[in-house]
Amino acid sequence: MLAEIITIGDELLIGQVVDTNSAFIAKQLNKIGVSVYQITSIQDDKQHILQALADAESRVDIIICTGGLGPTKDDITKKTIAEYFDDILVKNEAVLENIESIWKQHVRTQLLQVNRDQALIPSKSKPLMNKLGTAPGMWIERDEKVFISLPGVPYEMQALIDHHVVPKIKDKYNCPFILHKTMIVYGLGESALAERIEAWEDALPKHIKLAYLPNLGKMRLRLSTKGFNEAQLRSDVQEQIDKVIPLIKTEYAGLEDEEGSVEVVIAKQLTKLGSTLAIAESCTGGAVAERFTTHPGASAYFKGGLVTYATDSKTNVLNVSKTDIETYSVVSSQVAESMAKNARQIFQSDYAVATTGNAGPTKGDSQAEVGTVFIAIATKLGVYSQEFNFGNSRIKVINKAVNKALEMLQKEIFKN
Amino acid sequence: MLAEIITIGDELLIGQVVDTNSAFIAKQLNKIGVSVYQITSIQDDKQHILQALADAESRVDIIICTGGLGPTKDDITKKTIAEYFDDILVKNEAVLENIESIWKQHVRTQLLQVNRDQALIPSKSKPLMNKLGTAPGMWIERDEKVFISLPGVPYEMQALIDHHVVPKIKDKYNCPFILHKTMIVYGLGESALAERIEAWEDALPKHIKLAYLPNLGKMRLRLSTKGFNEAQLRSDVQEQIDKVIPLIKTEYAGLEDEEGSVEVVIAKQLTKLGSTLAIAESCTGGAVAERFTTHPGASAYFKGGLVTYATDSKTNVLNVSKTDIETYSVVSSQVAESMAKNARQIFQSDYAVATTGNAGPTKGDSQAEVGTVFIAIATKLGVYSQEFNFGNSRIKVINKAVNKALEMLQKEIFKN
Repeated sequence: MLAEIITIGDELLIGQVVDTNSAFIAKQLNKIGVSVYQITSIQDDKQHILQALADAESRVDIIICTGGLGPTKDDITKKTIAEYFDDILVKNEAVLENIESIWKQHVRTQLLQVNRDQALIPSKSKPLMNKLGTAPGMWIERDEKVFISLPGVPYEMQALIDHHVVPKIKDKYNCPFILHKTMIVYGLGESALAERIEAWEDALPKHIKLAYLPNLGKMRLRLSTKGFNEAQLRSDVQEQIDKVIPLIKTEYAGLEDEEGSVEVVIAKQLTKLGSTLAIAESCTGGAVAERFTTHPGASAYFKGGLVTYATDSKTNVLNVSKTDIETYSVVSSQVAESMAKNARQIFQSDYAVATTGNAGPTKGDSQAEVGTVFIAIATKLGVYSQEFNFGNSRIKVINKAVNKALEMLQKEIFKN
Repeated sequence: MLAEIITIGDELLIGQVVDTNSAFIAKQLNKIGVSVYQITSIQDDKQHILQALADAESRVDIIICTGGLGPTKDDITKKTIAEYFDDILVKNEAVLENIESIWKQHVRTQLLQVNRDQALIPSKSKPLMNKLGTAPGMWIERDEKVFISLPGVPYEMQALIDHHVVPKIKDKYNCPFILHKTMIVYGLGESALAERIEAWEDALPKHIKLAYLPNLGKMRLRLSTKGFNEAQLRSDVQEQIDKVIPLIKTEYAGLEDEEGSVEVVIAKQLTKLGSTLAIAESCTGGAVAERFTTHPGASAYFKGGLVTYATDSKTNVLNVSKTDIETYSVVSSQVAESMAKNARQIFQSDYAVATTGNAGPTKGDSQAEVGTVFIAIATKLGVYSQEFNFGNSRIKVINKAVNKALEMLQKEIFKN
């Protein structure tokens, strides 16, 4: 079962908006056994949309479009889809009721004609009720193929995928099971890792595919397979994981959570241990805290964080000693360690992690080279830190520092 | 001049990685007058790559591929490109030297054969020297069309775009000037805005295109045009902006910065005023601070932030009164206001912004409905707050709260 995702909107083609919808849809489809063959982003242009639909129809079974369903004149997806199916737009009463109810609840001004017109859908389509917005999703079948059109607003699209598209696809097709397992490996470059596991890789069974995903100081090694016997596939992949781990024993940091992130793994472990965390950030500027608080359930273990960006905040708020800063500079192991120690004390947490460094592009309150970062971990047993140089691109330095802080934290927490 | 971006990698098609490369490339191309016609994400599969190259060649003048250039077996882009051009791979000495120098500087172990092999490039290509990694970019011309292959690692790709691809395209083609201007509008829905400005929209000159970009509580209204007379285009667009502003006087919040974000506008204004900022976050968990510290130059105005996620951190660290929390609950205007006031005091800043709310999915330490958020602004003149309900999707609540906090801050700072 193959799908293509078509994201429609000039904002994507001029780089004003990053297309996050496709990754969400692809992940949800994979979970129910649908492989995404291609993702295509196109303009709000009639001929281009018609061409993309025809191309996709020739390649795949399921076509999911997002975008271009708003009430304004630049939104042309709906009428173009009607044209593609040689169809007309007709008023759907259930959709109109939904629009009126949303309007009453959230907007409270008079419903405009353009909003009423959002209840017009191709006569050959079934509406997918959008409880979060006025643009309905649409589902059209033709010759065993399915065309789905969804609004581009991410949370509206996501709810429609979860509550309508996924159940309907599962209902209609007998999909295989798709399995991805991703191992996290620290401290080995892509080629060194490949050399180390070469014999294992060459002996992988044909139905298991391997991918290397290097990313700012960590490697992810993904095994993928699909088929109809879930138990067998799971055991085949597990067998390969068990074989490769001894080859990367010291560098292996565990399996990536199904939800895909180290912070979720840490969060689960902290919650399990009943332990708490505090964070003191300088160069990472809140990004470490944000990685945790994005996920629900953070209040179970996350006590709080301090972003002491200015040097005087480090002394005034985080009680770092002025003498230490003068003696060792603000980018130093001493300062990182006292940030972690004091954050742990201030927030009364079991663990604390701290970052201080110079993300560039210019030198700050310290003479440290751009890219220098110290990361410290404080526990009830004491505090330790490590020094890194993450190069000279600001975004890269920040992201690498965040990844490294999570890595150190993960290692510390899984010691127990 | 039309371009297509082809991003290659199974990780994109299974939703493991969001494709941020395309937006970066599209933005840089737009700046030099190249329009992106389509973005296509495909698998690490020979037939698929060959097909996508042929399709793109039939549509556009410039084809930029990213991904699949690593040293491991799952990376097949380079040899597939050689096949597409009926070419062979040959060793490039300059590339090999670059690889050896990177290896000596950063890796310090022995250079492996697979890394040496990264110096093999199609004989018809010119290498684009990658100073940040071992995979070279490649530039191939055929029949007035250009094919560019770049590594998928974002910072390597970005440096190659900025230092090689953009200058070479500017050199080769006489590109038009592309102009986008985006107005930020708060407090008007898409359809209400469209109705308000309908007459203006209908009278827009043919060469100026309008787009509505709704996003979590704010609207962006983008005017786009292109042509060869930059001064004329700038004045045409400015004329339209001057005409529409009186129609949306109270809702208009200024032009989006060319770099595309409200926080950059705020940062510039704070720096200009010589004023400083502190942030106290509960439900937004560090995301507001992170929006500012991502950009260089934050140390000029950003004193620091507190993420007081747990209720006891609000009292212990941010000195919010226990009685207030007991009387009004932790999600209340009283608590938001004292968070802002105390953050301003603790960090000794001119302005402070604070968020407290319940992002869900379940109720926390307060009985407040999921989605309820209070945002407060403290200045030297006092403190004020507003209550919001941002619905019941966690990510949506957090993002809307961040946007709203930035909006309130922007309005406050531009009062002066």
